[in-house]
Amino acid sequence: MAKQERAIRTRRAILEAAGAVFDEHGYASTTISMVLERADVTKGALYFHFPSKESLAQAVVESQVSFGAVPPHACKLQEVIDMTFVVGQQLLGNALLRGSVRLAVDQETPAGVDHGEPFRQWADRLTELLELAQERGELLPTVRPRDTVELLVGCFTGVQLMARALTDRADLADRLAVMWAHILPSIAVPGLLPGLDARADRGARVLAAEEERAAS
Amino acid sequence: MAKQERAIRTRRAILEAAGAVFDEHGYASTTISMVLERADVTKGALYFHFPSKESLAQAVVESQVSFGAVPPHACKLQEVIDMTFVVGQQLLGNALLRGSVRLAVDQETPAGVDHGEPFRQWADRLTELLELAQERGELLPTVRPRDTVELLVGCFTGVQLMARALTDRADLADRLAVMWAHILPSIAVPGLLPGLDARADRGARVLAAEEERAAS
Repeated sequence: MAKQERAIRTRRAILEAAGAVFDEHGYASTTISMVLERADVTKGALYFHFPSKESLAQAVVESQVSFGAVPPHACKLQEVIDMTFVVGQQLLGNALLRGSVRLAVDQETPAGVDHGEPFRQWADRLTELLELAQERGELLPTVRPRDTVELLVGCFTGVQLMARALTDRADLADRLAVMWAHILPSIAVPGLLPGLDARADRGARVLAAEEERAAS
Repeated sequence: MAKQERAIRTRRAILEAAGAVFDEHGYASTTISMVLERADVTKGALYFHFPSKESLAQAVVESQVSFGAVPPHACKLQEVIDMTFVVGQQLLGNALLRGSVRLAVDQETPAGVDHGEPFRQWADRLTELLELAQERGELLPTVRPRDTVELLVGCFTGVQLMARALTDRADLADRLAVMWAHILPSIAVPGLLPGLDARADRGARVLAAEEERAAS
């Protein structure tokens, strides 16, 4: 059991090191030795978990879905909003997530690593929430959840990319607030609008509350 | 004069070849010889115009602003809409534009090539138009043109990226129509909405009309 736990920890350490190296150098310039050095594990341990650089990249890309967890909220549309702000906040502090996003976005990442998969996974997660929001009468009757969700995922991707290019993501949360200010009036029933919280510091507040809850 | 014209043509041929090669292979894997072969020019001609791979990449990135020209329209918001659909359409058929977008988006492109510049240039062009739209009373009084424009540029970038990853951009125009359906109600005065044309085939129609006009 202790052995299994150690294996899980080693795998995690390798994944986090790989995420950081891919984030800084991209797929082509990353070498297994750079990951080894960063993770401080043996070559044997790395190859046991990941037989190739491509399998390592695939695992980093797949790690994206472990991010963006938010506490349940009575209003499902608020949960959708929260996910975007939480992921935005996590991008600032988590190199594994940044590496994962870079690999998915960079065209140089080899075709064996599925570029479309993260887009589909985010869209699936959000569609489930938005369909729930629709059932509960939170959305205008004209909204088609899948269309709205795919726009949100694409828009988020580009907005974080632009924030990275212009301000090293320092203004990402502000840009997300602008995104929601433009999209919410087209999807939410008007009575809901004043109560929805899509201010720039939403992600930081949600994460702080979660940490407090976990600590108590 | 003929000599100068020939130089301009040669430069253009090199640029288009470089755009296509960067689009297919990205910055790191592109070599000067690949561009030479594609452009069918001499090494001397290429180095005369572009002393390095980096200067070639910079010129390809800068070429972005030559795209997205649209005919003037009485409604300036319609011109903004038209620019997005025309660029979307041009992305399908023009390898120089695709290469330029890839270089700007890929993090592997060296820092000497300014990643932020294309974002700023598009934002400047669109802000000018949207401020004109505001002066003419086309926009809701709450709209801050620069915020809206930066959202549009970021959103367009991510939407085209997602379309590339999922359908090799085949559904890009549909995704742009969804984008506008979500954003227009938040920025245009209500009376304008029924008359604005943001249907998926808008880009193809604008370009066809332009070609017809040029041919007559």
